[in-house]
Amino acid sequence: MTTDEIGSAEQCRHPAGQAPRTRTHGWTPGPPIAEYAHLTGEEILLEWIAGRIPEPSICSTMDFHLIEAKPGRAVFEGRPGDHLHNPMNTVHGGYLATLLDSALGCAVLSRLPAGLGYTTTQLNVHMLRPLFADSAPVRCEAEVLHLGRTMATAEARVVGTENGKLYAHATTTCAVLTPRPAA
Amino acid sequence: MTTDEIGSAEQCRHPAGQAPRTRTHGWTPGPPIAEYAHLTGEEILLEWIAGRIPEPSICSTMDFHLIEAKPGRAVFEGRPGDHLHNPMNTVHGGYLATLLDSALGCAVLSRLPAGLGYTTTQLNVHMLRPLFADSAPVRCEAEVLHLGRTMATAEARVVGTENGKLYAHATTTCAVLTPRPAA
Amino acid sequence: MTTDEIGSAEQCRHPAGQAPRTRTHGWTPGPPIAEYAHLTGEEILLEWIAGRIPEPSICSTMDFHLIEAKPGRAVFEGRPGDHLHNPMNTVHGGYLATLLDSALGCAVLSRLPAGLGYTTTQLNVHMLRPLFADSAPVRCEAEVLHLGRTMATAEARVVGTENGKLYAHATTTCAVLTPRPAA
Amino acid sequence: MTTDEIGSAEQCRHPAGQAPRTRTHGWTPGPPIAEYAHLTGEEILLEWIAGRIPEPSICSTMDFHLIEAKPGRAVFEGRPGDHLHNPMNTVHGGYLATLLDSALGCAVLSRLPAGLGYTTTQLNVHMLRPLFADSAPVRCEAEVLHLGRTMATAEARVVGTENGKLYAHATTTCAVLTPRPAA
Repeated sequence: MTTDEIGSAEQCRHPAGQAPRTRTHGWTPGPPIAEYAHLTGEEILLEWIAGRIPEPSICSTMDFHLIEAKPGRAVFEGRPGDHLHNPMNTVHGGYLATLLDSALGCAVLSRLPAGLGYTTTQLNVHMLRPLFADSAPVRCEAEVLHLGRTMATAEARVVGTENGKLYAHATTTCAVLTPRPAA
Repeated sequence: MTTDEIGSAEQCRHPAGQAPRTRTHGWTPGPPIAEYAHLTGEEILLEWIAGRIPEPSICSTMDFHLIEAKPGRAVFEGRPGDHLHNPMNTVHGGYLATLLDSALGCAVLSRLPAGLGYTTTQLNVHMLRPLFADSAPVRCEAEVLHLGRTMATAEARVVGTENGKLYAHATTTCAVLTPRPAA
Repeated sequence: MTTDEIGSAEQCRHPAGQAPRTRTHGWTPGPPIAEYAHLTGEEILLEWIAGRIPEPSICSTMDFHLIEAKPGRAVFEGRPGDHLHNPMNTVHGGYLATLLDSALGCAVLSRLPAGLGYTTTQLNVHMLRPLFADSAPVRCEAEVLHLGRTMATAEARVVGTENGKLYAHATTTCAVLTPRPAA
Repeated sequence: MTTDEIGSAEQCRHPAGQAPRTRTHGWTPGPPIAEYAHLTGEEILLEWIAGRIPEPSICSTMDFHLIEAKPGRAVFEGRPGDHLHNPMNTVHGGYLATLLDSALGCAVLSRLPAGLGYTTTQLNVHMLRPLFADSAPVRCEAEVLHLGRTMATAEARVVGTENGKLYAHATTTCAVLTPRPAA
């Protein structure tokens, strides 16, 4: 088990007299999906949900998780937290952007045949209202709008699981890669 | 000192037989910048760089830091890492989006007089090439293009500190808020 | 009746030996919608469709027209033509962008109470396949996703009326203006 | 010489009692740039500026023109007019979007070797202030930010030629096509 001392005192720049916080999170390193060249994109996502392919580390760092996938569609759920504060002490827009980008990319992956990969080339995010560290979990649903030979587009929304409010929405352009790139 | 057990075994979904990793990072909770209503945006950023205002927790979670600010301009530097992997095992585009959004928002803040706040309403990111967990640190520079009474726009770029390559660029529309919202 | 000689020989830069074309289009100048302060946004759009408020000149210049409006939704139809060529001799992406922006803005207007106006602050367009001058007419449907006190967002798609293919899609952020600005 | 009767009375929906306007504009049909496969992108643009390759018809329809090109850069100038009104009686954002898209695409073309083409896949526009039909001409400068094997990005700004004010700015993602597509 490895422990990165990324959050060292120097880097955190703790002003004197305030109580620092730490957070420990974990993940299981796995091969890039390029190594699952025998599986379709949908199969990869279902293995991931089933826990037989480890989720990528960003899920643990940010705290959101893939919960549903079918062709053309992917759903993540995430729990806001104190580790996501921006200078306003609301949840950083980058959390929403990362959640949206994850769902959008997986929606595209869900339509790809075995052996093909993808990469985001453009991400467009609209942020509508503040999300707080103690807000209820949010749900991000993404759907593919276009899948071509070399390019795909998709749209996604982030909605509060309890209040049903729309926090953000996004679109993406992904490049379709042949074959899936090895890291 | 608080320890969140966010990265628990259940949530991490460790497939059997692979060695899990953990990472501990830390930050100092601080008031939202709304409480620094007597400071201009630039003064807030300079206090932040000097360590007299704690950096927001997202900086520790993602591992990037504000290093320069002057009116109309903000610069962050970040170190890629294993905690940022996407399904391809490259650095997740959300890391770039969060870094860009941070620099863009701080560039806007750097032009605001005392008492005014901002929030991102739209973020547009172009991603150009893969970044890896062991890549050299990246530098993100943002500049304001337009500051109006109710709206501002800015542009930013992420460049490798060693190879000088352009990894991503972005633009934003921020709303200018009067007064700075309390969290 | 006024005739602008905008398309004069000098401006058109006709290379010798090729037959030039001209196109004449027309519109009825009308007051800005700011002068209809007693009407809701939806009422303005219905008067426009009924021909009792003149359509803005861009509709004639580009050749597209508003055909449906209800709260939160607006639909335009347009006929591609030779006047819209880009350097590839396909229909210029700006035609799609203008059509999308029109539908998006009118969708927002359709939700506004009497006296309020709007303006586009950000437009994000994804273009998916070439449209040709002799393609069948296209239909652009827009829907509001969020309407706040000072900001609204909407999404729209351009689809071929005969083949049902998706040519482009877009999102927008509009500022909500109080009161409607006079030109 | 052909005259399209696109702006017929029925299509223009002239409310009774208001004086209609007409506008006549012209262009010279030319082959798509795919037929200039022996020329580099820059050479095509210089031939266009010199009047030896006809400008595409959108330039006449909207009334803007290419005035400068060198590798990685293209400049258009346009004259606002009554034919560009939106419902507010200001210049339609689609005019700015079309002008920006033209300059962005030509900036990308200016870097392409002989035989390669391009197409816009994503266009992101920020609109900052109203432009009026009787405003002074505007200048749109675009520069390439990234040129890869299959994708390019660029940024552009629209500035008033007399007041120097920034009206809009944009970024694009273009696909690089091999070979240039024939229409």
